[in-house]
Amino acid sequence: MATVLPAGVSEGDVEKAIEAFVDALGADAVMTDTEALREFRDPYAYKQSDEWDASAAVSPTTTEQVQAIVRIANEHGIPLWTIGQGRNNTYGGAAPRVRGSVIVNMREMNQVLEVNEDLCYAVVQPGVRWFDLHDALEAAGGRCWPSIPDLGWGSVVGNTLEYGRGYTPYGDHATNVCGMEVVLPDGEVLRTGMGGQTGNEAWHVYQHSYGPSLDRLFMQSNYGIVTQMGVWIMPRPDVYAACGATWQGEEALEAMVDALRTLMLEGIIRNYPIMGRGIGVGMDAKPHIDPTDPTWRLRFALYGRQSIVDAHWDIAREALEAIPGVEATCHQMPGTERHAQARGHDEQVQCGIPEMDLMDLFKTPYGEETGHLDFSPVGPLTGKDVVETFRLVRELYDRHGWSYLGGLLMSPRNVIHVTTTFFDPNDEEQTREVYAAYDEMVLELAKVKKVPYRTNIHHMDLVADQLDFNDHIQRRTSERIKDALDPNGILSPGKQGIWPANRR
Amino acid sequence: MATVLPAGVSEGDVEKAIEAFVDALGADAVMTDTEALREFRDPYAYKQSDEWDASAAVSPTTTEQVQAIVRIANEHGIPLWTIGQGRNNTYGGAAPRVRGSVIVNMREMNQVLEVNEDLCYAVVQPGVRWFDLHDALEAAGGRCWPSIPDLGWGSVVGNTLEYGRGYTPYGDHATNVCGMEVVLPDGEVLRTGMGGQTGNEAWHVYQHSYGPSLDRLFMQSNYGIVTQMGVWIMPRPDVYAACGATWQGEEALEAMVDALRTLMLEGIIRNYPIMGRGIGVGMDAKPHIDPTDPTWRLRFALYGRQSIVDAHWDIAREALEAIPGVEATCHQMPGTERHAQARGHDEQVQCGIPEMDLMDLFKTPYGEETGHLDFSPVGPLTGKDVVETFRLVRELYDRHGWSYLGGLLMSPRNVIHVTTTFFDPNDEEQTREVYAAYDEMVLELAKVKKVPYRTNIHHMDLVADQLDFNDHIQRRTSERIKDALDPNGILSPGKQGIWPANRR
Repeated sequence: MATVLPAGVSEGDVEKAIEAFVDALGADAVMTDTEALREFRDPYAYKQSDEWDASAAVSPTTTEQVQAIVRIANEHGIPLWTIGQGRNNTYGGAAPRVRGSVIVNMREMNQVLEVNEDLCYAVVQPGVRWFDLHDALEAAGGRCWPSIPDLGWGSVVGNTLEYGRGYTPYGDHATNVCGMEVVLPDGEVLRTGMGGQTGNEAWHVYQHSYGPSLDRLFMQSNYGIVTQMGVWIMPRPDVYAACGATWQGEEALEAMVDALRTLMLEGIIRNYPIMGRGIGVGMDAKPHIDPTDPTWRLRFALYGRQSIVDAHWDIAREALEAIPGVEATCHQMPGTERHAQARGHDEQVQCGIPEMDLMDLFKTPYGEETGHLDFSPVGPLTGKDVVETFRLVRELYDRHGWSYLGGLLMSPRNVIHVTTTFFDPNDEEQTREVYAAYDEMVLELAKVKKVPYRTNIHHMDLVADQLDFNDHIQRRTSERIKDALDPNGILSPGKQGIWPANRR
Repeated sequence: MATVLPAGVSEGDVEKAIEAFVDALGADAVMTDTEALREFRDPYAYKQSDEWDASAAVSPTTTEQVQAIVRIANEHGIPLWTIGQGRNNTYGGAAPRVRGSVIVNMREMNQVLEVNEDLCYAVVQPGVRWFDLHDALEAAGGRCWPSIPDLGWGSVVGNTLEYGRGYTPYGDHATNVCGMEVVLPDGEVLRTGMGGQTGNEAWHVYQHSYGPSLDRLFMQSNYGIVTQMGVWIMPRPDVYAACGATWQGEEALEAMVDALRTLMLEGIIRNYPIMGRGIGVGMDAKPHIDPTDPTWRLRFALYGRQSIVDAHWDIAREALEAIPGVEATCHQMPGTERHAQARGHDEQVQCGIPEMDLMDLFKTPYGEETGHLDFSPVGPLTGKDVVETFRLVRELYDRHGWSYLGGLLMSPRNVIHVTTTFFDPNDEEQTREVYAAYDEMVLELAKVKKVPYRTNIHHMDLVADQLDFNDHIQRRTSERIKDALDPNGILSPGKQGIWPANRR
């Protein structure tokens, strides 16, 4: 029996829905035990709070079962909350926005459905982890590399739908999606793009549609449950070069940002570089957290034929070392030898070898249950703006006596300023202060016209509130689409501040 | 007084709407004269037919006027049809899908609102032509190049919203959109992406949203009128190399396709190459139409520092000339000298110098009023599939005694097979045969699971019908969104087969 009821739903409705889930999926695929459900909690919310608890979790194995789940939820008015692997730590983990929602746990739909080494794409189900994609690509012949984020345990689909980032030239994952299968809120199955024609072989190679393109409608949204996704992957290069640079001070930071923007726009650096201070995102073999370390570290990578990598490195080194105080390094290896020769997190993550090093690192401040809360506003990639934003954010951490620990996730034209606070989620007061400071940061950054690219379940409405143009027309438009596709409001209500009519 | 009424709309309603348009925009901005309206006809429909005529045309100069137009249309139930420049020749020109629609002519909203040479983007209104964008970029300092299609007279926004293509590394125009302003069917103004926050400086540099990303919802669709669009542009390279190759026969074609795919995926060739036979898309300085010419021609381009262009050319030449019968050429010039040194259409179009050479060429078969109808299915970029599709399409032209005249617009993973038939739109029988043959081609290509990436107003429903998966769920979903955003069905009804509830 469910002990946590969603607002507006009776215990009887929840019980009937759970019976129907059991009928459709089997008892093993339906979890209602409170202890067992702790697995789906937000690991970084205050540990004694049950504010974000789910009422149940269901684990489909097929698209048809996902359809059945959605239809049952409609019948009984049950809010669902979909997770791929639920490794969305710092953004809420697996926990639902609406207390008492039923988790749709996609971990059992974990097949790599296709690998095409010639056309460089894979088709994955939402339970496929970065580890699984890597292994499937190696098994298929090793001619393609995935772009992976820092931690290998997450879902490829889950990360990508949240605009998650990786570090190869395919690191802006959302832009490398090509063709989805989606269960809509009414239980119908949609295939996007050329998948609209049964059997069309351009489904996973052509990103547009005949008509409007719907793929990105299902990102950071609550309009459907993605059951398959095509992802573009990179061909294995002849040579992989893991490069880096170090320096101190904000004068060089400003110049570095401008130099990197030019190198990226020019196509010299084609991956997604990261630079940071105080935390292990640099060019070290070993990750580290050290707020007192004044050194800035950059990592980036080059890929391709030997002649191209050499020429790119010459140009990049010259541009970076022209900045006073900057020293650059480069570690080259054959693409076929990356497993043997890539050293540590920074070299592995840029060539698609998933691991969990940062997870261990992140447990050091307060032990096994250490929490961290990331604040990640987006801005233009100009040296001037980056330094101003860095100083502002640092000042906001200073107010609380916390250190700036952060990294800049750079694209050719924009940057995500990711900073983080570590805390002990068993300490109610400390946890509350960290989350309240996040509120403050959102409001302070809104004054300089910036918002986070992504946020946790605790702050979704607050961030949505900052998107104020024309009386929040963006949210109002998203909600009109929501109401059209999901009139009963059953799919992930409240996600990114988009509420269905019955919960607004 | 309007002489052409849209189905289901009374003469009184049209007259009241026109009065209201005059009140809102001034008499000069409202055109109802039948002779004058001929300018907005489909130039390649049968000349004596009035089947695709508009009832009026309105020419707003501000976003507020666009809002007024939309509100008036809602009040009187008038279907609107939006055009940028209306140079959408072979896809219907400026003509509306629904006879008697009022053309919303955006030609007077023709400002380049911003050029940012550091971050390599521009913001354009929908009346901005490729000529205008080129000139604005030169005036801003010449540090950025636009990606342009074959003809310079078209609208940047119009082409891009139709998934139109250009030939620099930014040639898949839809993927280089960043941030729109859109007037929704109810007259509200939406800004997409980070533009959802007033004054956010990441609007035109960060492609995603907080929440679902709506940009691509407004492509090939009838959900809104785009009044501003951010477009990413390329930095001027040190060196520009216009390259080409020639060969004969389909054996080499298959090998060429596979070689080019590898070169593109590897990042050696970063622009959008084109190869063709019988028509002037090759590496000639002068465009040509010659169905008897058995020679295939490829054009592609390289960009960057001298050392990089040299290294890329060595690799590309070696790969292409390894194929028996293939000869490759390369014409290099400094990026600053492209206006002086780029020769003819093929070299100019790949470095963003707009002109109209192909327009003149296309008048040669039947004189000034020559029509042509393009058939352009999408497929995967593999040598095997390309040759099979080429042979099938050639056979379909052979059935009518017509020659294969075509080009392959290549991306790293897909190809658009563009072929064309020239005809005399003053000849009713010939025109009818050409359009009927298009029907046949759509149906024959559907048997091998391919659809055109874009089509003309005459065939929009037929192509939409081929997207059959789950009882046309893609169209049904698009129509649910249509009904939510445009309940009165006033914006471009029938576009790409998407009909509002009142016309289904």
